[in-house]
Amino acid sequence: MSDATTAPARRPRGRPGHDRDSVLRVAIDLFNRRGYDATSIGDLAKELGVTKSAIYHHFDSKESILEAALDEALEEISRVVETASAGDGDAYARLRATVEASVGILAAHLPAVTLLLRVRGNSELEQRALAQRRHIDAQLATLVRDAAAEGSLRDDVDPDMISRLVFGMVNSLVEWFRPEGPIDASSLARTVADVVFDGLRS
Amino acid sequence: MSDATTAPARRPRGRPGHDRDSVLRVAIDLFNRRGYDATSIGDLAKELGVTKSAIYHHFDSKESILEAALDEALEEISRVVETASAGDGDAYARLRATVEASVGILAAHLPAVTLLLRVRGNSELEQRALAQRRHIDAQLATLVRDAAAEGSLRDDVDPDMISRLVFGMVNSLVEWFRPEGPIDASSLARTVADVVFDGLRS
Repeated sequence: MSDATTAPARRPRGRPGHDRDSVLRVAIDLFNRRGYDATSIGDLAKELGVTKSAIYHHFDSKESILEAALDEALEEISRVVETASAGDGDAYARLRATVEASVGILAAHLPAVTLLLRVRGNSELEQRALAQRRHIDAQLATLVRDAAAEGSLRDDVDPDMISRLVFGMVNSLVEWFRPEGPIDASSLARTVADVVFDGLRS
Repeated sequence: MSDATTAPARRPRGRPGHDRDSVLRVAIDLFNRRGYDATSIGDLAKELGVTKSAIYHHFDSKESILEAALDEALEEISRVVETASAGDGDAYARLRATVEASVGILAAHLPAVTLLLRVRGNSELEQRALAQRRHIDAQLATLVRDAAAEGSLRDDVDPDMISRLVFGMVNSLVEWFRPEGPIDASSLARTVADVVFDGLRS
């Protein structure tokens, strides 16, 4: 909002008061609440209290808002997984660090990650996001396979299935974790890693 | 479809060929693919190749179809959790059996469970389903608490969080498990229980 105050001349259309990022935040929340397909630019304009053209000042289309949201989530996750995959040495330590970092990203980008996890492939953009998720899943499965090969993980469960179960647990956090709630993201990350690697039994 | 063949006089309206259950199956799949709110009775009639009145022969409204689907999932899960909660003796064994049985229900009722997990509370019916889910979650958390109290589970993680993490992993199976695929539901159930109770480390 600060640039609307300092440089109102840059935004000739619509009511000022929303910069690109704040439009994106409100759009992601609205998409998560009502569903992307069921939400129009008109709905978003109403929610923001601006005209549609004020939104088109920042984004070409509804889809370009979705693209920005999905990119936000995918870029963060990709960065962590690339780093872990490229590292050498102890695959177990890299896998454990990746699980913890994934929880951290989910907590820091909860609305964007929630939106990403709900994408069903209804457009070319959504198909592309699903392909990127599959690429990330394959990298994670390789990391699990490397940890199993070095003897750090149990060898009676298929590495692909381990990867799905572990990151299924991580992804399920979007259903109940709230950054403003009583649970701290970094202690949650450690707990998730403790449970999946060491098990629940005393 | 057999009753349409043997007793066509019972179904005077619309094209015969779909009994109540087959209408329900197709509706659940359509709701999962397009979203419940975005799907109309007209869409469902088109998908089934019947008139809308053929659907109203079996269901009063779109919402009564959703209700039947949510009841299918909730009744199965409630039955398992009630049985486990009411049992006496070893809480750890009852909890482990509940985790395995939950995977079994998810596999046997995958479309209905998928629909249940996507409910966001957009109507009184959806709010009621969410309240039932919360009741089930509370029973599961009690079971986890009992297992921790008898000393079977690690005591450094809050029982409510354990319950959320474990059943979050179970629920995440709807994203990739397919009953017609290569993985057998009962071996998947054992694997999930092995991973969460015994951990991944060798």
